[in-house]
Amino acid sequence: MTIGIIGATGYAGAELIRLLLGHPEAGTLILASSSHAGERIEDIYPNLRCRVSAVLVSPEAAIAKSDCVFAALPSGVGEPYAGAALKRGIPYIDLSADFRFDDDEGVYSAWYGKPYADPGLREHSVYGLPELNRRRIQELASKGPVIIGNPGCYPTGASLASYPGLAKGLAGEGAIIVDAASGVTGGGRELSRAFHFPECSEALSPYKVGAHRHIPEISRNLSKMAGRPVRLVFTPHLAPMNRGILSTVYIPLAALTAPPGGNSTDLPPSKEILQRADEIRELYAAFYQDEPFVRVLPSGATASTRGVRQSNYCDISVHLDQTGSTLIVVSAIDNMVKGAAGQALQNMNIIFGFDERLGLGAAPAAF
Amino acid sequence: MTIGIIGATGYAGAELIRLLLGHPEAGTLILASSSHAGERIEDIYPNLRCRVSAVLVSPEAAIAKSDCVFAALPSGVGEPYAGAALKRGIPYIDLSADFRFDDDEGVYSAWYGKPYADPGLREHSVYGLPELNRRRIQELASKGPVIIGNPGCYPTGASLASYPGLAKGLAGEGAIIVDAASGVTGGGRELSRAFHFPECSEALSPYKVGAHRHIPEISRNLSKMAGRPVRLVFTPHLAPMNRGILSTVYIPLAALTAPPGGNSTDLPPSKEILQRADEIRELYAAFYQDEPFVRVLPSGATASTRGVRQSNYCDISVHLDQTGSTLIVVSAIDNMVKGAAGQALQNMNIIFGFDERLGLGAAPAAF
Amino acid sequence: MTIGIIGATGYAGAELIRLLLGHPEAGTLILASSSHAGERIEDIYPNLRCRVSAVLVSPEAAIAKSDCVFAALPSGVGEPYAGAALKRGIPYIDLSADFRFDDDEGVYSAWYGKPYADPGLREHSVYGLPELNRRRIQELASKGPVIIGNPGCYPTGASLASYPGLAKGLAGEGAIIVDAASGVTGGGRELSRAFHFPECSEALSPYKVGAHRHIPEISRNLSKMAGRPVRLVFTPHLAPMNRGILSTVYIPLAALTAPPGGNSTDLPPSKEILQRADEIRELYAAFYQDEPFVRVLPSGATASTRGVRQSNYCDISVHLDQTGSTLIVVSAIDNMVKGAAGQALQNMNIIFGFDERLGLGAAPAAF
Amino acid sequence: MTIGIIGATGYAGAELIRLLLGHPEAGTLILASSSHAGERIEDIYPNLRCRVSAVLVSPEAAIAKSDCVFAALPSGVGEPYAGAALKRGIPYIDLSADFRFDDDEGVYSAWYGKPYADPGLREHSVYGLPELNRRRIQELASKGPVIIGNPGCYPTGASLASYPGLAKGLAGEGAIIVDAASGVTGGGRELSRAFHFPECSEALSPYKVGAHRHIPEISRNLSKMAGRPVRLVFTPHLAPMNRGILSTVYIPLAALTAPPGGNSTDLPPSKEILQRADEIRELYAAFYQDEPFVRVLPSGATASTRGVRQSNYCDISVHLDQTGSTLIVVSAIDNMVKGAAGQALQNMNIIFGFDERLGLGAAPAAF
Repeated sequence: MTIGIIGATGYAGAELIRLLLGHPEAGTLILASSSHAGERIEDIYPNLRCRVSAVLVSPEAAIAKSDCVFAALPSGVGEPYAGAALKRGIPYIDLSADFRFDDDEGVYSAWYGKPYADPGLREHSVYGLPELNRRRIQELASKGPVIIGNPGCYPTGASLASYPGLAKGLAGEGAIIVDAASGVTGGGRELSRAFHFPECSEALSPYKVGAHRHIPEISRNLSKMAGRPVRLVFTPHLAPMNRGILSTVYIPLAALTAPPGGNSTDLPPSKEILQRADEIRELYAAFYQDEPFVRVLPSGATASTRGVRQSNYCDISVHLDQTGSTLIVVSAIDNMVKGAAGQALQNMNIIFGFDERLGLGAAPAAF
Repeated sequence: MTIGIIGATGYAGAELIRLLLGHPEAGTLILASSSHAGERIEDIYPNLRCRVSAVLVSPEAAIAKSDCVFAALPSGVGEPYAGAALKRGIPYIDLSADFRFDDDEGVYSAWYGKPYADPGLREHSVYGLPELNRRRIQELASKGPVIIGNPGCYPTGASLASYPGLAKGLAGEGAIIVDAASGVTGGGRELSRAFHFPECSEALSPYKVGAHRHIPEISRNLSKMAGRPVRLVFTPHLAPMNRGILSTVYIPLAALTAPPGGNSTDLPPSKEILQRADEIRELYAAFYQDEPFVRVLPSGATASTRGVRQSNYCDISVHLDQTGSTLIVVSAIDNMVKGAAGQALQNMNIIFGFDERLGLGAAPAAF
Repeated sequence: MTIGIIGATGYAGAELIRLLLGHPEAGTLILASSSHAGERIEDIYPNLRCRVSAVLVSPEAAIAKSDCVFAALPSGVGEPYAGAALKRGIPYIDLSADFRFDDDEGVYSAWYGKPYADPGLREHSVYGLPELNRRRIQELASKGPVIIGNPGCYPTGASLASYPGLAKGLAGEGAIIVDAASGVTGGGRELSRAFHFPECSEALSPYKVGAHRHIPEISRNLSKMAGRPVRLVFTPHLAPMNRGILSTVYIPLAALTAPPGGNSTDLPPSKEILQRADEIRELYAAFYQDEPFVRVLPSGATASTRGVRQSNYCDISVHLDQTGSTLIVVSAIDNMVKGAAGQALQNMNIIFGFDERLGLGAAPAAF
Repeated sequence: MTIGIIGATGYAGAELIRLLLGHPEAGTLILASSSHAGERIEDIYPNLRCRVSAVLVSPEAAIAKSDCVFAALPSGVGEPYAGAALKRGIPYIDLSADFRFDDDEGVYSAWYGKPYADPGLREHSVYGLPELNRRRIQELASKGPVIIGNPGCYPTGASLASYPGLAKGLAGEGAIIVDAASGVTGGGRELSRAFHFPECSEALSPYKVGAHRHIPEISRNLSKMAGRPVRLVFTPHLAPMNRGILSTVYIPLAALTAPPGGNSTDLPPSKEILQRADEIRELYAAFYQDEPFVRVLPSGATASTRGVRQSNYCDISVHLDQTGSTLIVVSAIDNMVKGAAGQALQNMNIIFGFDERLGLGAAPAAF
């Protein structure tokens, strides 16, 4: 199988290469880059030396020869490539935001500042969060070439943390608050003041508070999961580490689901509250029991980015606040794997009917 | 002025030494440690070589010769020293939790696992958050020797972020959520699995979710500030850096204070919402205008631990979520300064009638 | 194939598990630990959850059921296990220093403080640096069960950087200086003041200057490579990162090999000197051309730990000082892979006649 | 006293501001920047908010109103400003390389790519390493306005480590090898691939091996200290931390000074060797006993960047290799203080006859 990667020199592209090199069905990789065409990938990523030696070609050339194309481009530039892939009859897995909003062009353009270039492409596209849309991905792929709108990194962590709680009706009134922090690779390879080492080392910094582009993507997911409109509050932070997204999600419990009697805000959680937390944890575990990449942690454990390094896992731990009124769910992913390249590969596996774990089987590194 | 530090070999003790070396009224420092008595401080902290050379003495010896005593001990062991200081007629500034709960012995013992050793000491003690209790500290100090319950690190950041919003009646129903992260010095000098470098470098990890000892301290502060009971949800995280606490605080706005019309959860904040955020920002700025160590950042800026390194500042930025319903306040402190030793020094300055900024005037380091 | 790991809960053990999970010939893993027997590995290493679930057994139990045993123990305790493995007729790959010195018991005991427990075991042991001893390993393994003295982390990086220069007679009189720095996982999982996060983050610290136990191991290697006694100066440093060893090796060039004419110490390198450096670089490349895990970088590139993360590669770059008199060779390895677990696996592959790259094929991570 | 800083928005400029804010003789600060003129410094460095609020002016305007000018500019652009300062009769302390080479214009232009713009300025300039040139600085300053060529960061650490050994005749034949590593602030505020967080976090990388511009500066210093030409080999590394330079310097001992008998390269250092190391350590301590900013550490301690954070100290530890033939001296400085802004301030204190420690008295931070 020949696989093309457009935008191969960005961080998500580089991670795709790393993962595809371990995928048993991946044969030739064709690497494309508009800005680096003609250069060799191993001169840009010395870690790849002796593992892949390839001259970067144009996106068009990659599409012309591939059986499947990944695009790791900025939002707003890739629709023509998606169209070209469809025409050639091959799947197009897009890591930008361009295909994450289906028909909601209004929402897309409000955040990304431009209309769809080719709205009709959305007939063939699907939002690629497998845990939510696996069946739909399979259906579309069975009918012809499909476009995947691969989820954003924050939306993946936030949505997986919320899904069972929302789908099972645990959430009451009030906003769902997602407080999340990302490693610096989330900012990409492009140089920027915010990602200059001395500006982010030894510092924790929120950014785009109440105004981050992932808000509508998360919000759409949560509403779909709950089957009703959900209000979302989202704050991203930049953390001084290379990889990982940690999401702490606060879900107000519906009155009926909260433990009876309540608990003072000033006292440690009672036995009843700890027990109720454990019941919800079991509900989460049951909900995800067939998912190959979601690990609901046992009682007493807390999810950390440390547990999922370089893997496609999403670790989830379930907690209650000391009064038993707010469900606190923590999810941890590797932002470059389950938050980008790994999930894209998972989508490729689904499209081609492979075992979903193919190429994603390496155990997380302990350190 | 001779100053004693009990528990001088812990991180808060070491930071107190660093700050006191730059305090113009601080003369001799008497350093005490139960576990290291007889050793020299510069063998434990090589950074202090040539700046202070002192043999560590017993706590009793320090109290006997000092005009003011700081205690940076674990909770639950220092009450006899406080009593001894009172007896000698000198102020005792305690960095543990022992004097943070006044008469609420029930709450203290529920979280710290033991009763007060000498409850009567609370007649002479006051919770030392100057922005909240400055007058009370001054009053008590004017009457005789005072015991300061120096605030915890998380409670300082969370309380200062919430104070104007609560005091001015902005908060509506619903829990106030404090999502905070601390640098690893917050865990102290004691060795522990969680603070072993390879276990926390390149990782972000929540801990004690819904069950951290700072919950009742924050909750008490917020209720006092609001003039009514406030429900608190608090999640601490460990961040891979040495210093700093970043608190992101979510306050549901009372209906009347929210911007009219509302805004879709899926759209970017409207002009009205951004303007409303700015009005609240100005309210915060006015509220803190006479405070020497609180900086309310200008519109458009976001607080980061990067701005307050090694200083006693608390930086605060004020935001609204995209629907205008939730006030999001970010505060940043250096956990070892405003979150511990610096605030203790600020309390000493208040007690002795010095300019509150004495010894705390160094500009934050940019990197 | 059933594989036993004694000392499975240490960092080298955990890394062995991660690598063996991706080894196509590795079947059941039997994990052993004296101190944690009865516990589950996934409770100690949450990253392994869903990938391996095993109750830790005693070392004896592991040896009794395995076809090959790895031992990741402190030096000085494993000889009885090695003996037991031999008796059972299975190979024993030892990551401690116990089998790195062959008959030089005097040198071993001078540095490790105890004599050999069972000197006769050295008849069956070989120092497992494949690039130096591959043939000898194969010979011994063909005759019966073999014991591998798997090299130390610093010795691996230092020796591979020096080998071609010494073997090809480039080195003149004078000491070879190895200045190296290691990530903190090199210190192991045991808690220690030096590895407490706030003591090593944001700091670079040499340690055991002129007195590190890896001195005799490196020195023996260099002398063997040169075919004559070589004087070694070695300084290790602790660097604030999890993984990696960077070695900068200074080799005085023999007069005949240095560029003619010389160059002022105050001027930039001349064309002749840069050209001479490139010739030596080519000599290095030719020397290692059949080695699967040594990458001699192209002219102009400099080795960095960044290029070899989580891989078994040793990257090498070759330079001359501005006067052309000193050969400066930089090598970079992942201390936990080529410096420990990966090299052990490479040795297992050699012993069993597998392709040496089996289980070690994952591309290095770019970040 | 009114003090001007040209290039105030770079990292060295920002550090100068931080230090000058604590200098009792510093009155008004006039901040200048060609590229940011008209902006406010606190918008660029939020840490400075409430401590200094200043609109950036042109370099000419700063010179016109100041009693002393610091210039933190790239090399090769500042000579006209130096000339203007001389004309106004005020001292000019230059942090670039332009005045570090006195009359050696050939060496300067070979490394920096351009001739002196105004060679005659060197009649009034002096290389500002106080430990080497204090008397000459005082002499020149007593005669009129002086230009200081403030030393580079690596040259400061390397030279102070070598000075006593060279001046006291300990060094024998052979190159002196300086292996050093710097925190990332050493690369300045300018964005660059090498200083993008994910490219340098968790990595140790040598650069410009055998070809770094600090080579001739170090080499000149060492030769002056030795009173004879010294051959230098120098390798800089980039370490994943914000601040600090750690230099490990290898000096071959002259035959007469080495311990008698020698020691095998394979054995731990003998008592005689450890004792000889201690004698040399005492020689170092005596040599520097009147220097306010050099701390020769006691026997058994090893210098680390951890000990000198944010201070003007240079910590030095003295060692011998296990054979007693090579003197290994480790020095640690904060690259932004003793390696840049602090040393510049020390020079200002010397010029004006102040206590050299003025404004530089803050104790190093322990973490």
